[in-house]
Amino acid sequence: MTYRVGIINVTGYAGMEAARLLWNHPAARLVAATGRSLAGQRLGEAFPSLGLYEDLPITETIEADVDVVFSSLPTAESAKACAPFVRAGVKVIDIAADFRLKAPGAFEQWMGGGQPHPAPDLLPEAVYGLPELNRDRIAAARLVANPGCYPAAAILALAPAVRAGIIEPTIVVDAKSGISGAGRGSGGGFGYSEVNEDVSAYKIANHNHQPEIAQELGALRGGEEPRVTFVPHLVPMTRGIHATCYAPLAREITQAEVLDLYRDFYHAAPFTSVSTVPPHTKHTLGTNRCIVHPVVDARNGMLVVASVLDNLGKGAAGQAIENMNLMLGIDQAAGLQLPAVYP
Amino acid sequence: MTYRVGIINVTGYAGMEAARLLWNHPAARLVAATGRSLAGQRLGEAFPSLGLYEDLPITETIEADVDVVFSSLPTAESAKACAPFVRAGVKVIDIAADFRLKAPGAFEQWMGGGQPHPAPDLLPEAVYGLPELNRDRIAAARLVANPGCYPAAAILALAPAVRAGIIEPTIVVDAKSGISGAGRGSGGGFGYSEVNEDVSAYKIANHNHQPEIAQELGALRGGEEPRVTFVPHLVPMTRGIHATCYAPLAREITQAEVLDLYRDFYHAAPFTSVSTVPPHTKHTLGTNRCIVHPVVDARNGMLVVASVLDNLGKGAAGQAIENMNLMLGIDQAAGLQLPAVYP
Amino acid sequence: MTYRVGIINVTGYAGMEAARLLWNHPAARLVAATGRSLAGQRLGEAFPSLGLYEDLPITETIEADVDVVFSSLPTAESAKACAPFVRAGVKVIDIAADFRLKAPGAFEQWMGGGQPHPAPDLLPEAVYGLPELNRDRIAAARLVANPGCYPAAAILALAPAVRAGIIEPTIVVDAKSGISGAGRGSGGGFGYSEVNEDVSAYKIANHNHQPEIAQELGALRGGEEPRVTFVPHLVPMTRGIHATCYAPLAREITQAEVLDLYRDFYHAAPFTSVSTVPPHTKHTLGTNRCIVHPVVDARNGMLVVASVLDNLGKGAAGQAIENMNLMLGIDQAAGLQLPAVYP
Amino acid sequence: MTYRVGIINVTGYAGMEAARLLWNHPAARLVAATGRSLAGQRLGEAFPSLGLYEDLPITETIEADVDVVFSSLPTAESAKACAPFVRAGVKVIDIAADFRLKAPGAFEQWMGGGQPHPAPDLLPEAVYGLPELNRDRIAAARLVANPGCYPAAAILALAPAVRAGIIEPTIVVDAKSGISGAGRGSGGGFGYSEVNEDVSAYKIANHNHQPEIAQELGALRGGEEPRVTFVPHLVPMTRGIHATCYAPLAREITQAEVLDLYRDFYHAAPFTSVSTVPPHTKHTLGTNRCIVHPVVDARNGMLVVASVLDNLGKGAAGQAIENMNLMLGIDQAAGLQLPAVYP
Repeated sequence: MTYRVGIINVTGYAGMEAARLLWNHPAARLVAATGRSLAGQRLGEAFPSLGLYEDLPITETIEADVDVVFSSLPTAESAKACAPFVRAGVKVIDIAADFRLKAPGAFEQWMGGGQPHPAPDLLPEAVYGLPELNRDRIAAARLVANPGCYPAAAILALAPAVRAGIIEPTIVVDAKSGISGAGRGSGGGFGYSEVNEDVSAYKIANHNHQPEIAQELGALRGGEEPRVTFVPHLVPMTRGIHATCYAPLAREITQAEVLDLYRDFYHAAPFTSVSTVPPHTKHTLGTNRCIVHPVVDARNGMLVVASVLDNLGKGAAGQAIENMNLMLGIDQAAGLQLPAVYP
Repeated sequence: MTYRVGIINVTGYAGMEAARLLWNHPAARLVAATGRSLAGQRLGEAFPSLGLYEDLPITETIEADVDVVFSSLPTAESAKACAPFVRAGVKVIDIAADFRLKAPGAFEQWMGGGQPHPAPDLLPEAVYGLPELNRDRIAAARLVANPGCYPAAAILALAPAVRAGIIEPTIVVDAKSGISGAGRGSGGGFGYSEVNEDVSAYKIANHNHQPEIAQELGALRGGEEPRVTFVPHLVPMTRGIHATCYAPLAREITQAEVLDLYRDFYHAAPFTSVSTVPPHTKHTLGTNRCIVHPVVDARNGMLVVASVLDNLGKGAAGQAIENMNLMLGIDQAAGLQLPAVYP
Repeated sequence: MTYRVGIINVTGYAGMEAARLLWNHPAARLVAATGRSLAGQRLGEAFPSLGLYEDLPITETIEADVDVVFSSLPTAESAKACAPFVRAGVKVIDIAADFRLKAPGAFEQWMGGGQPHPAPDLLPEAVYGLPELNRDRIAAARLVANPGCYPAAAILALAPAVRAGIIEPTIVVDAKSGISGAGRGSGGGFGYSEVNEDVSAYKIANHNHQPEIAQELGALRGGEEPRVTFVPHLVPMTRGIHATCYAPLAREITQAEVLDLYRDFYHAAPFTSVSTVPPHTKHTLGTNRCIVHPVVDARNGMLVVASVLDNLGKGAAGQAIENMNLMLGIDQAAGLQLPAVYP
Repeated sequence: MTYRVGIINVTGYAGMEAARLLWNHPAARLVAATGRSLAGQRLGEAFPSLGLYEDLPITETIEADVDVVFSSLPTAESAKACAPFVRAGVKVIDIAADFRLKAPGAFEQWMGGGQPHPAPDLLPEAVYGLPELNRDRIAAARLVANPGCYPAAAILALAPAVRAGIIEPTIVVDAKSGISGAGRGSGGGFGYSEVNEDVSAYKIANHNHQPEIAQELGALRGGEEPRVTFVPHLVPMTRGIHATCYAPLAREITQAEVLDLYRDFYHAAPFTSVSTVPPHTKHTLGTNRCIVHPVVDARNGMLVVASVLDNLGKGAAGQAIENMNLMLGIDQAAGLQLPAVYP
């Protein structure tokens, strides 16, 4: 059987990447794709990298009959667009941030600029789409909130340590991202000449991925959220996230014990692996892979964990397809077992 | 049926890319891979980007029973390694340059530093592996000389014009290449800090891809080789070749006529397409695609053709797999219909 | 004595670079700088790279008493802004393209989108500001048309050969430029994620620098313009131009003779040097230097000349200051003898 | 008066940068430069970026009479080369790491691979060359240990907070460096194709800059060293360091109070400034500047400080010249007041 997939806003980078990955999916096919600014063009025309989709029209709305919908619209717009599909029984994966934060008022504070959530009734049932933590709930969900790219990297780096209780709840997440994280047509400030040969931090301790990280790590320790100081940085590359996470050790533990603990945690995860050497973002390019590397800094009683992923892969579209696979009850890894593009 | 493939020197970039592309090939499987410096390790260990090959050992020589062999050894070594396989009836695609130049003495002059060809008896039967020109001969060959990355781009840019006789035989090929063209472990001179933010030409009018371009364009006009001034440049990116080709028009012709002529020439080619706008190397990243864009400079009576491809794709490993498909009698595009990784 | 300099539109890259270079000029000082969008801010505040100018205000117009004015406004606006200063006896260097093309109708055709030149009376007296060709006329000028970045590289590559009559007048100029050539805030199409890891041509045989190159090379052969096919390309780096120029040799000549001819031509030029190896754009970064490298392709009877410069240095602001020095009668190299920033 | 300067190992990046900066120094002149591999060549020949030094020979040892010597030899070799100059009364600035760590056994443990310090008698008198902390001692020194690039960024980020006692002594330093930090000819692992589009950490919590940071921050609090977890990362750019530093606040303090405290601390420093927005490495390119940006993360009781500098400028050669200026009793900023090269 081939499932029919629609993408709302295929013209953003996450939407384009979902279309790319779906091309070779064995059990799903892209049959509808929206994109206001390019409606009327065919997808393969509008984006030469997707030239193989020579006949698929970009439309204003999804009219075709679909089994699954991905949305990568901007915040608030996305929830509005997702809601009717959920209610009509279509499986929905929201790649935007609208259904991630569960606490009352959190959407208003962090996402909505004060405006209320567009579909508050759906918020409780939305499942946070990180299969390493929520595999069964995702499989049963009709609405999945796909993780943010930074939170995916940070949570996968820290989850084993948090659940095992080996670190104190005072966490630093220092994340470095390629520029595609800023989105397509992000314009001002992301011009090549300014961004090339430059590193800078932004939204220091004030980014809306901070509460997302805190919420999900909190869920691993009975709901009590840790303190998370989160600082994102832009580095001159297109794709990739490197999260370096720091937390004081709550008890003495050896490097070997930590490695065992991480390997146990991820032994059944098809896309997250534990490395004994520092991982490289480039080893995940174009894939749904995450590599984590925990290090005990015994001198200072600190746990350091480096994790890497492709912000458009495990950090967005790859993750979305993994979630789709689970929701459809097919092989979790279908269409996603790809070597990285290297060099 | 699944054909069994071996790669000689999987540790070079072309070998690694062949391994990457074979992972999802529907009818072929990598069963043996050599690499002296890494022999003993498993492929997925040695190269994290190929982590999915967790069990395939890197060996010194190919012992397994194989149907096809790719070789990407250095010049002269490659012919030596290919010969026994050809003689044993294994289909061989030589990604190195050893079997490309046919003229007596050409190998000695351009490749061998004066030393003789290691397998001169096989030279006459080797077919130049550009399916856009030699599809049927490739299908019947037992030894294919895979094109060089620059010649692939230049020949595809110029072939329709040369065969139609619309240009004079005094050609300029100005080519820009990403750094991966210099090969893995190319060391000195390709360090990041030197190469980044730099453009330079090298081997001006003296690169061994010049006679290759001249030979194959000559074959399109009855064997009379055109004059080709070829200048390669390195630009600060990893993958991609952009060839800009110039030749005086031999007669008046309109832009529309040239476009028709190019489209006719490539109408059956699955991987080479004709664009009406300047093509971008990035639209071919990770694929076997070539995009050509001919422009009539009527003011000066000049034909300008821009062409782009991924030097490790259509310029090496992708092309090699396309040749393999033809040699095995399976779908020419098997395993190669991939959208580009973008952005 | 310290001359007083004003910059019209300091907020463009050329204006910023002029300000940077003037900071350490021994005989000139920046005393006024305009920039509509940032008027009211101090220069050192608006641009942290120019933080040393902590007290210089950005204004709407130049009110201060000045000896020299640089303008880097957009086409047509620039001529309008320059004219009153020329008439008031202030030395003017127009970094824009307004005063470069001399032929009647050329401005309208190539620059003005059909609209007439804003100051046609000044056009005849404007001197093309390439000191290697017009040193004395620049020294006597009150209005200098600063060369375009591509023409500077192409003309310096070809001038000795054209003047000596060793090449046929059918020239190809294949130029590669860093992205800063597109200007600050050039927005759409120059976002990092699109431009990084990409090479593409644009305005093939249709760029307004083509007539500029033809005009100035024509002046070297009695006014008869050669045919120039000019194709610019964007490569993923911030600064730098590499022009590779091709022309059929008009007579037999050796590599040694060509080198002598080029060395003679440039023996008195402080900023253009002749190299016997392929030059690197990076060796000119941040400087007013141009390096040319002529090669006889004897096999094909072709002259190939590679030339490199920093598009904001010898291709814009550095050149403008060299012109200012000549116009003021001070040392031609004052303030410009800078090693390149490397690596 | 013009002081005479020698550079030991001009062929490393720090040596080359010192030569670049000295070219325009008003009171010092490079008169001798060593470099074993290139001895016999002239400096301007060996390095086209330094073409202005057309007559300066690279020698094996410094024979000329000099007032000051910079050394940028590898560890241990440097101390050996510096010692005779110190003893002969020449001012010496060691850009290598040999004289930085003061604790007995620290050199052996962190630098020497177990071998003893080559000049232990000079270790006590060597002054750590960070003028923001040690201005007067540097001025009186005959031997200065120039700071490491990472420590310079980290210490300048944290010194005001440590001295004021507003943070707990459990510090995280997450640093991102351009690739030139790995040194010229660093070969294996720093090839363009591997490093481009990649971020990775290395020597996690095990880099020899960790004790250097701890030692100097300890000196600011009576010798009691804080715990410092230091993780360096490589990012795909040539120059620049971005250090992001984290420490728990020891008491409540507002953002405004912290800014005041930092501004007070650096009010007399010519090259370190306090920014109210996140700083960009690119705003320091080619300069001796450091920009620090402290942020109170009140939600988590954490101080975050971002700091940026050019690893070859304030992180090496610029700093060395600033130290030289102090040691010679001339203007601290002589030759170093340069706008950044931007974009």
